[in-house]
Amino acid sequence: MTARLFHKVLIANRGEIAVRVVRACRELGVASVAVHSTVDRESRVVRLADEAVQLGPAPPKLSYLNAAAVLEAARMTGADAIHPGYGFLSEDPDFADACAAEGITLIGPPAAVMAQLGDKASARTLMSEAGLPLLPGSLDPLSAEEAHRLADRIGYPVIVKATAGGGGRGMQVVCSSAEFPDAYRRTQATARMLFGNGEVYVERYLADARHVEIQVLSDGHGHAVHLGERDCSVQRRHQKLIEETPAPNLPDGLAEQMGKAAVAGALAAGYVGAGTFEFLVDRSGGFYFMEVNCRIQVEHPVTEMVTGVDLVAEQIRIAAGQPLRLTQEDVRLSGVAIECRINAEDPRRGFAPTPGRLTEFTPAGGPFVRVDTHAYQGYLVPPNYDSLLAKLVVWAPQRDQAIARMLRALGEFHVAGERVSTTTDFLADVLATDAFRTATHSTALVDQLR
Amino acid sequence: MTARLFHKVLIANRGEIAVRVVRACRELGVASVAVHSTVDRESRVVRLADEAVQLGPAPPKLSYLNAAAVLEAARMTGADAIHPGYGFLSEDPDFADACAAEGITLIGPPAAVMAQLGDKASARTLMSEAGLPLLPGSLDPLSAEEAHRLADRIGYPVIVKATAGGGGRGMQVVCSSAEFPDAYRRTQATARMLFGNGEVYVERYLADARHVEIQVLSDGHGHAVHLGERDCSVQRRHQKLIEETPAPNLPDGLAEQMGKAAVAGALAAGYVGAGTFEFLVDRSGGFYFMEVNCRIQVEHPVTEMVTGVDLVAEQIRIAAGQPLRLTQEDVRLSGVAIECRINAEDPRRGFAPTPGRLTEFTPAGGPFVRVDTHAYQGYLVPPNYDSLLAKLVVWAPQRDQAIARMLRALGEFHVAGERVSTTTDFLADVLATDAFRTATHSTALVDQLR
Repeated sequence: MTARLFHKVLIANRGEIAVRVVRACRELGVASVAVHSTVDRESRVVRLADEAVQLGPAPPKLSYLNAAAVLEAARMTGADAIHPGYGFLSEDPDFADACAAEGITLIGPPAAVMAQLGDKASARTLMSEAGLPLLPGSLDPLSAEEAHRLADRIGYPVIVKATAGGGGRGMQVVCSSAEFPDAYRRTQATARMLFGNGEVYVERYLADARHVEIQVLSDGHGHAVHLGERDCSVQRRHQKLIEETPAPNLPDGLAEQMGKAAVAGALAAGYVGAGTFEFLVDRSGGFYFMEVNCRIQVEHPVTEMVTGVDLVAEQIRIAAGQPLRLTQEDVRLSGVAIECRINAEDPRRGFAPTPGRLTEFTPAGGPFVRVDTHAYQGYLVPPNYDSLLAKLVVWAPQRDQAIARMLRALGEFHVAGERVSTTTDFLADVLATDAFRTATHSTALVDQLR
Repeated sequence: MTARLFHKVLIANRGEIAVRVVRACRELGVASVAVHSTVDRESRVVRLADEAVQLGPAPPKLSYLNAAAVLEAARMTGADAIHPGYGFLSEDPDFADACAAEGITLIGPPAAVMAQLGDKASARTLMSEAGLPLLPGSLDPLSAEEAHRLADRIGYPVIVKATAGGGGRGMQVVCSSAEFPDAYRRTQATARMLFGNGEVYVERYLADARHVEIQVLSDGHGHAVHLGERDCSVQRRHQKLIEETPAPNLPDGLAEQMGKAAVAGALAAGYVGAGTFEFLVDRSGGFYFMEVNCRIQVEHPVTEMVTGVDLVAEQIRIAAGQPLRLTQEDVRLSGVAIECRINAEDPRRGFAPTPGRLTEFTPAGGPFVRVDTHAYQGYLVPPNYDSLLAKLVVWAPQRDQAIARMLRALGEFHVAGERVSTTTDFLADVLATDAFRTATHSTALVDQLR
């Protein structure tokens, strides 16, 4: 067994990712503390963790986004590290600073790195200097007039984005010069409201692009590796529904080229931990840096399935100061993995969330199937958070076998409850499209289906 | 996708292996028929298969061992192949003959091969000719006097075995010459009662041996490969509880040597399909052929986890006449896999079965964990069959990580019900022993624990 990494890790998150982190802690021999809101006290993580602390009421500001309450829970339980999961406080440099001030290790990159990469304009500047290709557009926040002139010069469609945005929020596609001033104003207003920061920038919008991202691990001792790419082109309103690795139908050598670019970017940023470099890839094989996600991703399991590497365990080891044990040559990619996000939503009613009590919850299983979930039969899905109920992941030697396996697994994943519906049938419909089967789809696939 | 292999496969079995076969059929685009006894109508396989046929009452003779009823179900549903799973009719040459007479493909080796390998004495003779090492003992059934003389010559302890036995039944260890006559008589009587065949033979008993077996695939077109070994040394009354691959602490090159021997044996026997060559391995690295299992094994998932090969799909492809697509060089073994059998039994009461309604069934999940089960929350475990409730399988790059992962997974696998208990805690205790951790255990481990 490895030497003790931390005494106790507090998981400042909820849902499936909180369960995922408890599992890694347990396997590493590290104690775990779950924190939860009042409506999340039924989550499986509360039972699985060694300890559980109630943070506050359901609204995230009063619980999962309440940095003071999280730190108080860490003090109270004697946790010497915090894993922030994804979302919530995971990319908040102020929280990273607050942890450091308390002498608690935040499992993620240092606050300064988080701040630089979290600001899209400064991230673009840094990555441009590191040699990563960018979409035509601004590197800096622009006034309405500057932005409009630039958009006219680049050519439409363009996308107006909040520098502090992410996860599909705070961005708008603009198809003509006439629409630009209004789109700018709305994006700025949204950005002020959501992020408290109204800065926006402009770049070319690729209507038919694919979303391809590179997973990196960087130890802060000058050593970084990439663990292949993930294709996350099946999206609904900029939110991913299906992810897979390797990205199918990429031109020869492109993934490797993107991997090297991401490693160069990670080293240039002084990155520490697990991070994801997101790129757009156009039909001609051009790739363009989008942003860095300074945290574990929802879709990390597909990378784990093809590499055999436990990414959350690596996050914890790196945060404890251990040098990476992996060299780039050690990273062997084998086969194909696909992840489907099983959401408690009704696809026939515009993906409206369907919270409620689960009267049945029978996950898929069997060969080469993985399920990550905080749910169980009898669980009450609260209405307060995103609707991700479970991640269903499969592996196979070839892509057509992986699709057949995923269809089999979706078919046997039974979730029922009064008023509860899920995305399983919808996901099966997407997998069965010719566009997905032949991997000729783009991020527009879901909209084309509806 | 591959060409249609069969129109419809009937699964002549129950429990987790029936679910396993339905999954393979679904992924291969082959329709499936579940058959079940009256008490098994709640099994998950009834819902998962495309069709279900009730065979008869609970006693196996009236349902799962009722060849006529199984064949009638195949005729009725238009199935053109039968997968027999393990146990029940899976190694019955008469059933194989009856299938052939009906023009139905039995997914397994031909009746003649099954008959020759099913008789332990003729299997030993054949394998000895193929160059496989045997334990000192007889190649043929012996009279009481002949057997006693041979036992005296070999030296004690010896084991008296029914030629038609298997699964730990019909065998007895004899520690001294004085005990021999009585042991012979009892084994013969048991064999007559259980198998309708009183033939017994004698071989040396290795008290401190390990049970190591080789998985082979052979296509009947002269091409066979092995897929590494499995160590099944953790046994209770000759029934396996924990299996793993690779076998830890084997002398260098021994597994490869055993693999080659098994391939030679499969080719010599004209074997077709997936089969397992069981060996005993002594402390000095000597290995001795025990028997061939002419079917899929309970523990096949550990081999699937380290090879990425779907063994049940390969069985179906081979039965459909397809040549093996794998060469020996294609078989890459990666990492370590461990399987634990979660039985509905009470280890504190001599592993007595604990049938009953499951008020909770929350399987383990997350990274590198696989669960094969026919159970679900609300399922009634019938009292009529073996007590295997679920197989829990984990993978990790190294053995110590795999043990930690299995302990984590056992800890989160929650099964409850009035009067229902399971082996999860007991299995965790076994994994935590120094003997298992250091892989210095033998088949005597469980007895030593109690």
